Amino acid sequence: MAQQVEIYDVTLRDGAQGPGVKFSSEDQLRIVQELDAFGVSYIEGGQPGSNPKAAELFQRAKDLEFQHAVMAAFGSTRHTKNAVEDDPNIKALLAADTPVVTIFAKYSPTHATQVLRVSLEENLTLIEESVAYLVSQGRRVVLDAEHFFDGYREDTEYALSALECGWKAGAEVLVLCDTNGGGLPWGIAQAVEACVQRLPEAKFGVHTHNDSGCGVANTLAAVHAGAVHVQGTINGYGERTGNANLCTIIPDLQLKMGCEVVSADQLGQLTRLSHLVAELANMIPRDSDPFVGRDAFTHKGGMHADAVKKLKVSYEHVPPETVGNSTHISVSELSGRSSLLQKAKELGIELDRDAPETRDALTQVKELESQGFEFEGADASLELLLRKAIGQHRTFFKLRGFRTSVDRHDADSPALSEATVKIELPDGTRMHTAAEAEGPVDALNNALRKALEGTYPELQQVHLEDYKVRILNAQAATAAVTRVLIESSDGETVWNTVGVSGNIVAASYQALVDSIEYKLLRSRGYNAD
Amino acid sequence: MAQQVEIYDVTLRDGAQGPGVKFSSEDQLRIVQELDAFGVSYIEGGQPGSNPKAAELFQRAKDLEFQHAVMAAFGSTRHTKNAVEDDPNIKALLAADTPVVTIFAKYSPTHATQVLRVSLEENLTLIEESVAYLVSQGRRVVLDAEHFFDGYREDTEYALSALECGWKAGAEVLVLCDTNGGGLPWGIAQAVEACVQRLPEAKFGVHTHNDSGCGVANTLAAVHAGAVHVQGTINGYGERTGNANLCTIIPDLQLKMGCEVVSADQLGQLTRLSHLVAELANMIPRDSDPFVGRDAFTHKGGMHADAVKKLKVSYEHVPPETVGNSTHISVSELSGRSSLLQKAKELGIELDRDAPETRDALTQVKELESQGFEFEGADASLELLLRKAIGQHRTFFKLRGFRTSVDRHDADSPALSEATVKIELPDGTRMHTAAEAEGPVDALNNALRKALEGTYPELQQVHLEDYKVRILNAQAATAAVTRVLIESSDGETVWNTVGVSGNIVAASYQALVDSIEYKLLRSRGYNAD
Repeated sequence: MAQQVEIYDVTLRDGAQGPGVKFSSEDQLRIVQELDAFGVSYIEGGQPGSNPKAAELFQRAKDLEFQHAVMAAFGSTRHTKNAVEDDPNIKALLAADTPVVTIFAKYSPTHATQVLRVSLEENLTLIEESVAYLVSQGRRVVLDAEHFFDGYREDTEYALSALECGWKAGAEVLVLCDTNGGGLPWGIAQAVEACVQRLPEAKFGVHTHNDSGCGVANTLAAVHAGAVHVQGTINGYGERTGNANLCTIIPDLQLKMGCEVVSADQLGQLTRLSHLVAELANMIPRDSDPFVGRDAFTHKGGMHADAVKKLKVSYEHVPPETVGNSTHISVSELSGRSSLLQKAKELGIELDRDAPETRDALTQVKELESQGFEFEGADASLELLLRKAIGQHRTFFKLRGFRTSVDRHDADSPALSEATVKIELPDGTRMHTAAEAEGPVDALNNALRKALEGTYPELQQVHLEDYKVRILNAQAATAAVTRVLIESSDGETVWNTVGVSGNIVAASYQALVDSIEYKLLRSRGYNAD
Repeated sequence: MAQQVEIYDVTLRDGAQGPGVKFSSEDQLRIVQELDAFGVSYIEGGQPGSNPKAAELFQRAKDLEFQHAVMAAFGSTRHTKNAVEDDPNIKALLAADTPVVTIFAKYSPTHATQVLRVSLEENLTLIEESVAYLVSQGRRVVLDAEHFFDGYREDTEYALSALECGWKAGAEVLVLCDTNGGGLPWGIAQAVEACVQRLPEAKFGVHTHNDSGCGVANTLAAVHAGAVHVQGTINGYGERTGNANLCTIIPDLQLKMGCEVVSADQLGQLTRLSHLVAELANMIPRDSDPFVGRDAFTHKGGMHADAVKKLKVSYEHVPPETVGNSTHISVSELSGRSSLLQKAKELGIELDRDAPETRDALTQVKELESQGFEFEGADASLELLLRKAIGQHRTFFKLRGFRTSVDRHDADSPALSEATVKIELPDGTRMHTAAEAEGPVDALNNALRKALEGTYPELQQVHLEDYKVRILNAQAATAAVTRVLIESSDGETVWNTVGVSGNIVAASYQALVDSIEYKLLRSRGYNAD
């Protein structure tokens, strides 16, 4: 029978400590529901003793119906000065009214004596009393053994006996934490094996960080050595270098190690879950992330793309569909007709292999790429080009001119930007607008919107999410060719467009116009209303 | 004695395949020099048989003096149809005239028969003949065993005997490649052990990718099992999820596994090297990267920051200085006083540790860094700032205003750029000039030169070699802050300057002015003639 491994998600606590990560109360509740549907076993909501927002989340989560998960409140063992039943932190943990309470305790002698400043014996008393009291109050207790692997190296017997103490007091899971993230897989595995040997009847978990670049591998090694409970965050969000990344660990466990973690259908939602949490956290998804990243199954370079076609497994370690991702063949200078056809299919466009339009489109792509266009990161511009080639196109406005200027009056005054735009609408109306902004591209964008939003009000939903500038032949210095990539969103869909020119303003204009045309083609179709 | 591990860098080949990574010929040459100084043993320059830019790099690298590294040219074994001495790829490898040639060969029966479409026996002949011929031509041969771990699982005996065949033919290193990146550490370790057992006298290397999220751990596990040669890229750049990240692997090997890789001083340059390569690749450094990331040693959250103060090792798995990084407690960027003093010394400026000017300069650097300035790639701007702080400065001209405009008359006509500049010279003369160019920044540069070259004819020798634009808070889209880096040269010296602004033209102006001031300060000194 396959080994069962349960997932304990700490995205809402450890993940929220990640630089730049921010969740509103609504976001937290949404994530709780998504994690439950995805099939995790525990969702840690935060530290009610020190964070009123966590207390609020536990309150609101009580109204949810859970399919798989239980909520867990997080806090420390009782303070050394307090009786356990009077300890404010323990009281807050009970007040959160969650099925599970997770407490962290010191497992390294140095940290107990120098950070917590208690004797080794007293440290054991804190663990024992805190666990036993929470169990007596009807809670399932998860015990996080902080700095466990450091403690194990420092004083193996103490670390193991402190685990035993928590286990005897009634803890349901003993979680071995690599708190400073410095472990390596074989060291982690060896310590886990020793724990299993000492307490064969106990249930062991693992909690790692990525400071050695081994956060994922350390967790996998612990499971390989006998751990059955894994703590981590979606996308590996967390302090410093981040926590163990569940979006990598779950498919590794399930697809490579044969563990039972979630159902195949749930695993198929992994990419969506990863992107959704990134969106809620206001983080840009990392394209290179294993399994769920945009580039995880992207192939470019003639040799590889060809080999992938011949033998998918050559460069795809798992079928991308299993994690809800897909193979992307990037259209690059090296790629021929078949990759263009494949890409078109991915975009939902049927191209006839031998039609002259297909040949024309390919010629055009190659010509543009030689000028410095890159469609790899600009699917929407490529889709517009291909649809134009097969006649699925429509003119929403014609440019009759634009002008941008940047003025600075002296060394101490700021530079001011202004743009004017002249366009002609399909009914012949001419719009001539002007706008200001901090930079010339932003001013141009504002003026263009002014000219179009009256006729096409859906453009009000569109905002620019990302703007990238790349200088191509940089050695030509300021006379170099500029490529601009723009990412746009209307709240439902995200699309990317590209512009290239020797003039940065003209390149930006091109990418802006593609972005607008893409939106209008989607909202209005290519037949005139 | 500590185990010696040699580093084989593939940043210029595998790394350059990473989405978005692009190096100019100048960048390549700069990276070669930096890698050599850092202490890697081999630098792979690319595939001369299919890439003219790689052939050019090998040519230019011949003029360099190497301290540690040798250059390696990369290509495949001979084509099945060609005699080895007539094979165009093998010829190109020899023509590159590098001390080392690296060839890749198929080590999985499936890949040999289905992708390469040769018999298993013929595959061995290709390996043997290609290695032996290159050795006979005086080359040291590195043999990359593609898909080795898949081949080992599929047909252990064939994979091992194919290694033996390359070894007997004279290969210097046998590199075991996890080409699709799907391996897990214990599987990798087990296979490496079997190889070492089979060929105890051979030298084994490892080449991994990060598709399972274990790229680093798999490399470490291979070294733990007996490999002594590690292939990877700076920052883990590479296709899909990237290659094994040398910026993580090197400190793990040296600081955690006790291997001898580079000197302690060289390791102290790791963070700088990582950021420099990111800058040249025009990639945004990942703040969460282990060891070298901005956040790798950043502590927030009261509890942790407090614990770090009490006991640094609590949350710092290695001393950050060992890799040239530093502990950050607050959000703000900070380069400490001692590194500023060190940098000043490097620039030939004597700063007094306790002088108020030094404190002021440090405050100013911190303030500018928080605005988005980065002096890592802009020594000349930093030097100007420091010299200003200690009074070694002189005003060569004052800006009295500039204006740039971009005009486009309709959809079919090109955009035209014009700039006007008003400056005041030290003798009170006002210059008011105008110039055109393809883009607004170039026009501004031209107008500024017109205004100054009469008075300062040495500026005619100065040309701009490189121009890079980075959008900082990209999510603010076109309203984002822009950082411009300019590299200038007068034929003898090369210097770099930086400008930051919400307005790309203003940021460029700042970097241009720094470039001009730097040149004039060097040619005329800071005392008025």
